[in-house]
Amino acid sequence: MDDLLRTPRGTRDIVGDEAELFEYLTTTFKEVAKRNGFKPIITPTIEFFELFARKSGVEIVKSMYVFKDKAGRTLALRPELTASVIRAYLKSLRNEPKPILLYYVGQCFRYEEPQRGRYREFWQAGLEVIGEKGVHGDLRVFNVMEQFFNEIKLKHYYIIGNVGIYRMFMNAFNIPGNEQDQILHLIDKEMFNEAINYAKKYGDEAAEVISKLISMNIEDLENMAMDYKELVKNYMDRLLGEIRDTIEFIDILKELGYDVRYKPSLVRGLAYYTGIIYEVKTSVLDISIGGGGRYDNLTTVYGGPPEYSTGVAIGIDRVMLALSELNIKPLDKDRVKAAILLLNDSKEYLIYAYKVSSLLQTAGITTLVLSGRKLSKMLSYANRFKFKYAVIIGSKELNENKVSIKDLDTGVQEYIKLEKINEFIKNI
Amino acid sequence: MDDLLRTPRGTRDIVGDEAELFEYLTTTFKEVAKRNGFKPIITPTIEFFELFARKSGVEIVKSMYVFKDKAGRTLALRPELTASVIRAYLKSLRNEPKPILLYYVGQCFRYEEPQRGRYREFWQAGLEVIGEKGVHGDLRVFNVMEQFFNEIKLKHYYIIGNVGIYRMFMNAFNIPGNEQDQILHLIDKEMFNEAINYAKKYGDEAAEVISKLISMNIEDLENMAMDYKELVKNYMDRLLGEIRDTIEFIDILKELGYDVRYKPSLVRGLAYYTGIIYEVKTSVLDISIGGGGRYDNLTTVYGGPPEYSTGVAIGIDRVMLALSELNIKPLDKDRVKAAILLLNDSKEYLIYAYKVSSLLQTAGITTLVLSGRKLSKMLSYANRFKFKYAVIIGSKELNENKVSIKDLDTGVQEYIKLEKINEFIKNI
Repeated sequence: MDDLLRTPRGTRDIVGDEAELFEYLTTTFKEVAKRNGFKPIITPTIEFFELFARKSGVEIVKSMYVFKDKAGRTLALRPELTASVIRAYLKSLRNEPKPILLYYVGQCFRYEEPQRGRYREFWQAGLEVIGEKGVHGDLRVFNVMEQFFNEIKLKHYYIIGNVGIYRMFMNAFNIPGNEQDQILHLIDKEMFNEAINYAKKYGDEAAEVISKLISMNIEDLENMAMDYKELVKNYMDRLLGEIRDTIEFIDILKELGYDVRYKPSLVRGLAYYTGIIYEVKTSVLDISIGGGGRYDNLTTVYGGPPEYSTGVAIGIDRVMLALSELNIKPLDKDRVKAAILLLNDSKEYLIYAYKVSSLLQTAGITTLVLSGRKLSKMLSYANRFKFKYAVIIGSKELNENKVSIKDLDTGVQEYIKLEKINEFIKNI
Repeated sequence: MDDLLRTPRGTRDIVGDEAELFEYLTTTFKEVAKRNGFKPIITPTIEFFELFARKSGVEIVKSMYVFKDKAGRTLALRPELTASVIRAYLKSLRNEPKPILLYYVGQCFRYEEPQRGRYREFWQAGLEVIGEKGVHGDLRVFNVMEQFFNEIKLKHYYIIGNVGIYRMFMNAFNIPGNEQDQILHLIDKEMFNEAINYAKKYGDEAAEVISKLISMNIEDLENMAMDYKELVKNYMDRLLGEIRDTIEFIDILKELGYDVRYKPSLVRGLAYYTGIIYEVKTSVLDISIGGGGRYDNLTTVYGGPPEYSTGVAIGIDRVMLALSELNIKPLDKDRVKAAILLLNDSKEYLIYAYKVSSLLQTAGITTLVLSGRKLSKMLSYANRFKFKYAVIIGSKELNENKVSIKDLDTGVQEYIKLEKINEFIKNI
């Protein structure tokens, strides 16, 4: 039997308090995104393999759930949602006024070794900004993130890097794109010596530049660019643009009171990033709880025109883990709860109970009708689940169109007319 | 390129107004379920094939997305959620006080020919009641459904049947379980003659009984049971119990004002139903927009103890289709929206804008900051997306710590101090 009750490795049921927390987090994320002008998008969970193979990066493609459908087409469970959102943008939203601001919450799948905070099926809450130049798009993303993390009371900080700076220098050394990806992949894994050695293929100066970039302060980058003026001359404009954008962006965030720091070796795993990139951290987890950045021109990979784009994905499972480590229980605004207890479960009682229930709900009260058990059992159920009131209905109440209502905190019980019930509750 | 933009057959992107409607419907469903005491549950999208093969019925097993993972285990994309919820109940919730009330919203997958309102990836919003005897559990389900459909303003009605009545009679004729499933399957497809012929294998009287059940009024069923008193004697108690429960249940629903009718030939496709079953209909679609019923003892299929259970699944895609056919746009309570328009997108303007944005949001206003375009362009964007206010920030506003605020309905523009902005908006 126990075997039948298992879920596949790396997946799990979310139940009880954890499920309520999950709902609270995803609802809060959506509300924050919405009040900042973002619109929802829902894309399929299964996509053609090709969509992700094109540009998600070697790491992700290796760990995808891939299968053939009955017509022989190769499908995949999505490992992330950005590729799908870009596809949907090109298909259905390209003529909408820019910027296009989208949010999503969805499960993703990666066939990796499960670890603490890492599942094979995991949940991402994400934002995408399409068609907006400069740092404003990134600022939108941070503004929503900051509001979200503050609302759920999770202390956090951001680290910021810029993969575009690495790419401009590597372009100058004529390092091909796939080789650049490999070097960035090594830096992402913090295998710095391996990355530097790999770059040696393109000369000692290339290795030296990579080595410097890995630890260079943001304030010194412009000077470094000047030191290699001759080498990077074809890329100087974009290089200086990326450096200045990053400095300006960090200034803005600090001015707005965000806890943010520059990390020169931050490059992130996904091959499609082009400029500013970032991760969200907490003190209690090694792994980041969110990450993203600019991925300008991902549209061209699918045959569309170039487009500025940026976005973030927050790992909901990791946020839940961080909250539990910190013993934070960000609670849904609590509603008053009333249990309606029937001393008999025949037809007339059920009908009366659901009329009472409906009356209470119009006053914003959560209700639960209980029947078919002894009063003492039903009262202990109501206490266990922290109901504020027990509304008791026996034959007297039913015949006289009244209810007995007991305040479970004070123990005070009253016998009142049905139409007075909301008035009664308001007065307490 | 176009090829790259396709989604797999039977799947789709939900974007724009449709996505906002989707969010509104699923949020409303969750809220209604919650205020009636139901708790969320989130189960994996991928499960072991065996979970569904055990009891979902031949029809569903045939149309499942099945694949092997890299370790050779046979997995499936869930075709429905009830089996997963029951598994999760047995694994993690069996010691909780009964009744256990659960709600979910999730995508399901069936490899069938796509038709109007039928997708291969589709969304179900569902309720499950575990551990409650009698019609109260079914009433809970209807109470939430009725509130949900009323809140989204979708005119609807319910049809009710009872598959337990069929099963008691067929038991009396010693028809084996899988043969019963086959007969019910034919009735479900409205192939009544085929069903009656199939029953002939078990004698003319069996065929006659099936034929009668297909069209017998609920009021006459008790008499019919009496006519076959000798035959059904071992099943009489349960048979009369099912008949009386169904009559009582329909009475209760009518008394509460629900539009409900009994349909003798309603049996539904899933093999696990045991008693009262139902579907939700609208005038504009042939297919039902929801369905469910009692599935007592499904727990035993997974080795658990017997448990009373009942539940429903509502097809969100079909609800969306019905609403669009009826041209109903149940709108989210509209929030006031303000666009903040920057005449310059340098650092100081962005910082000031997001401070203004934050101020407006504390007053419950949805904001969107626009920059990097001509004022006329930004104003037309604000008009197109029905913003109520444009808050304009140029150098004068920035330097004097003020804003120009324009009511886009009336055209009235004022120049006010930043700290007066919420007061100003409240007064209009």
